[in-house]
Amino acid sequence: MPKFNPAVETLAAPPIPTVFAWGRSYDGRSGPMIDLSQAVPGYPAHPQMLRLLGDYAANSAYTGYGPIEGDTRLRQVYGAHVASVYGASLDAKNVHITSGCNQAFVCAAIALAGAGDTVLMSNPYYFNQETTLGMLGIKVRLAACDPENGFLPDVAMLEEAITPDVRALALVSPNNPTGAVYSPELLSGIFDLCRARGIWLMLDETYRDFLPEAGVRPHRLFEKPDWQQTLISLYSFSKSFCIPGHRLGAITAGPAVVEQVAKVMDNVQICPPRSAQAAVADALPLLTEWREQNRLEIARRASALKETLEGLSGWSIGAVGAYFAFVRHPFADRTSSDVAEGLAKEAGILCLPGSYFGPGQERYLRFAFANANSETIRLLRDRVQRFGDAS
Amino acid sequence: MPKFNPAVETLAAPPIPTVFAWGRSYDGRSGPMIDLSQAVPGYPAHPQMLRLLGDYAANSAYTGYGPIEGDTRLRQVYGAHVASVYGASLDAKNVHITSGCNQAFVCAAIALAGAGDTVLMSNPYYFNQETTLGMLGIKVRLAACDPENGFLPDVAMLEEAITPDVRALALVSPNNPTGAVYSPELLSGIFDLCRARGIWLMLDETYRDFLPEAGVRPHRLFEKPDWQQTLISLYSFSKSFCIPGHRLGAITAGPAVVEQVAKVMDNVQICPPRSAQAAVADALPLLTEWREQNRLEIARRASALKETLEGLSGWSIGAVGAYFAFVRHPFADRTSSDVAEGLAKEAGILCLPGSYFGPGQERYLRFAFANANSETIRLLRDRVQRFGDAS
Repeated sequence: MPKFNPAVETLAAPPIPTVFAWGRSYDGRSGPMIDLSQAVPGYPAHPQMLRLLGDYAANSAYTGYGPIEGDTRLRQVYGAHVASVYGASLDAKNVHITSGCNQAFVCAAIALAGAGDTVLMSNPYYFNQETTLGMLGIKVRLAACDPENGFLPDVAMLEEAITPDVRALALVSPNNPTGAVYSPELLSGIFDLCRARGIWLMLDETYRDFLPEAGVRPHRLFEKPDWQQTLISLYSFSKSFCIPGHRLGAITAGPAVVEQVAKVMDNVQICPPRSAQAAVADALPLLTEWREQNRLEIARRASALKETLEGLSGWSIGAVGAYFAFVRHPFADRTSSDVAEGLAKEAGILCLPGSYFGPGQERYLRFAFANANSETIRLLRDRVQRFGDAS
Repeated sequence: MPKFNPAVETLAAPPIPTVFAWGRSYDGRSGPMIDLSQAVPGYPAHPQMLRLLGDYAANSAYTGYGPIEGDTRLRQVYGAHVASVYGASLDAKNVHITSGCNQAFVCAAIALAGAGDTVLMSNPYYFNQETTLGMLGIKVRLAACDPENGFLPDVAMLEEAITPDVRALALVSPNNPTGAVYSPELLSGIFDLCRARGIWLMLDETYRDFLPEAGVRPHRLFEKPDWQQTLISLYSFSKSFCIPGHRLGAITAGPAVVEQVAKVMDNVQICPPRSAQAAVADALPLLTEWREQNRLEIARRASALKETLEGLSGWSIGAVGAYFAFVRHPFADRTSSDVAEGLAKEAGILCLPGSYFGPGQERYLRFAFANANSETIRLLRDRVQRFGDAS
């Protein structure tokens, strides 16, 4: 057989299916499986969202190709939404719609960096961003986030890590996997660093609609006069509208970035799926109150998780926020993968090993607590305790 | 501003929007615009297809993530379909669903080749395949297709072009842009060459449902005992089901290829859009007769085009078949882009310049005649003639 691309062949198998396989071999001994593995909302899409998706999908006006950058109406509606969330002056020309936020990252990464270039990431990182860079032959440099500092990145440490070959810094806030929310001040400092060093800041804000406080601007970067020359913000409609299966995300950036991304997107997919774009353009203003209720619900789940794990011998929360908690387990001599597999097969708890998110994360597990309601989350205490006692 | 990836920055702007812009500045002097630019079916999707798309999109069972490789049911149904079309023994494990055939090509290309590797293509080529390789830093080598031989590739010429750095040969049959249909014998010879030289054969078969004869196997490659170690077949549901806006395509290959492509696809999009997959799984067996009627209709359009251009002074058809004709224009001293722009703005005929499809194609234009019905196609004669007389 001819060879494969070694950059792909040497990639590990996608992590989520591996974890699902552990789940399938769970015999139910501790009760129904509690799935905290994948970052998916644990409640359904709004009936109006489903109606809109159905209506537009059945409409022959949306069976044809659309603009590469996304349908004009969604670009306008989403541009206005971002402008309002951040109190910033931007519009449709700053928006490129994609098929989900992974695709936003891939397209932006290709637009900015080629094989042999370097992108700086935090450790821990969101694994698909790391494997994306890996498959493209783009080198990855890591800047450690100190657990003692709630897994927040440190500007001085980032500065040190920006060698001349670094083209961009890729960050996620609220963070995946830790849940840590980067403050506007921290992000401002990081932005200034990137601008001063002449590198792009790729900021994945997939979870920004789930900040703990209402009506707070995630950051003030869009107010900086020259933001378009540094910032590329990524977003997903999957979490906020509970429609990951419809694959919609967005890039917010300067028109020069949109122009380069469009060339990549034309190759990757010609255009994002049409009918879901029309549905989301309608739903974005319609479902504002519903999304606010979900934000509150997710905040309750975060509180439930904190209470549930509090005082549990050997377990602690490294960071928590938005969708995720990065939980420290008590087993110093076991790999995180071994602990996660054990939790799945013995305790009926599906979560991801810390090692999936970077080297040196063996003491941690990612709990995607947004998947489960508070009642279910409270069941964790007993299961985690028994698992610890039995191990 | 920080730099962009030069492999992207140096790419030309996506071609279709450029041509649409010519169309927008047409003043209507020759009658309504005849759009032969983009390869889209000129008739609507079947009402049952639209109903299925609407029903599944409104169903909350399809709002979540699905398997990376595609929904099991569509993989099964499509695997069985391919097995039946080619009289071959293959099934779901040979199928990877993607968001359109461009994405099938991108994912397969990344799985096979990295920056600095070489992929061999025909000249003329489908431009998005060339720009895809370009943006990935994969080198492109071209093997010319002789116009005197109906733009068919030549095995001896291909053999000469396979230098040791070539990882794969990318071909399209029925061809885009020429419409040339590669015979089973020709494809068998090309396959044997690729196998002997240890390179992959990536065969884009997006237009295979529009062969001029009924029930003919496009090729016998899937019957070769070791096909999985050489062949990667690409397909689009866009043309056959008239749903390009729903973005669905497929890769048919050995499970080892599917495994590598899944790693790429996980990064690029996590999974293809869910509800459209369910709809197509239902529609594939249901709409067999409708698709056969469309095949006949497209064949009638091909005949209409041939009759229409026949004997037109200075114009001739270099190749024609399935969706496209590669038409030779009479203006030896004008670029194909200049001629196409003139046709758009003066004659109200929107087509693509030959130069978009490779170096040395200045004497040709691509007519995507599937977009227009026979009556409209017959209007071309008068317009082309007058355009020639006036030029």
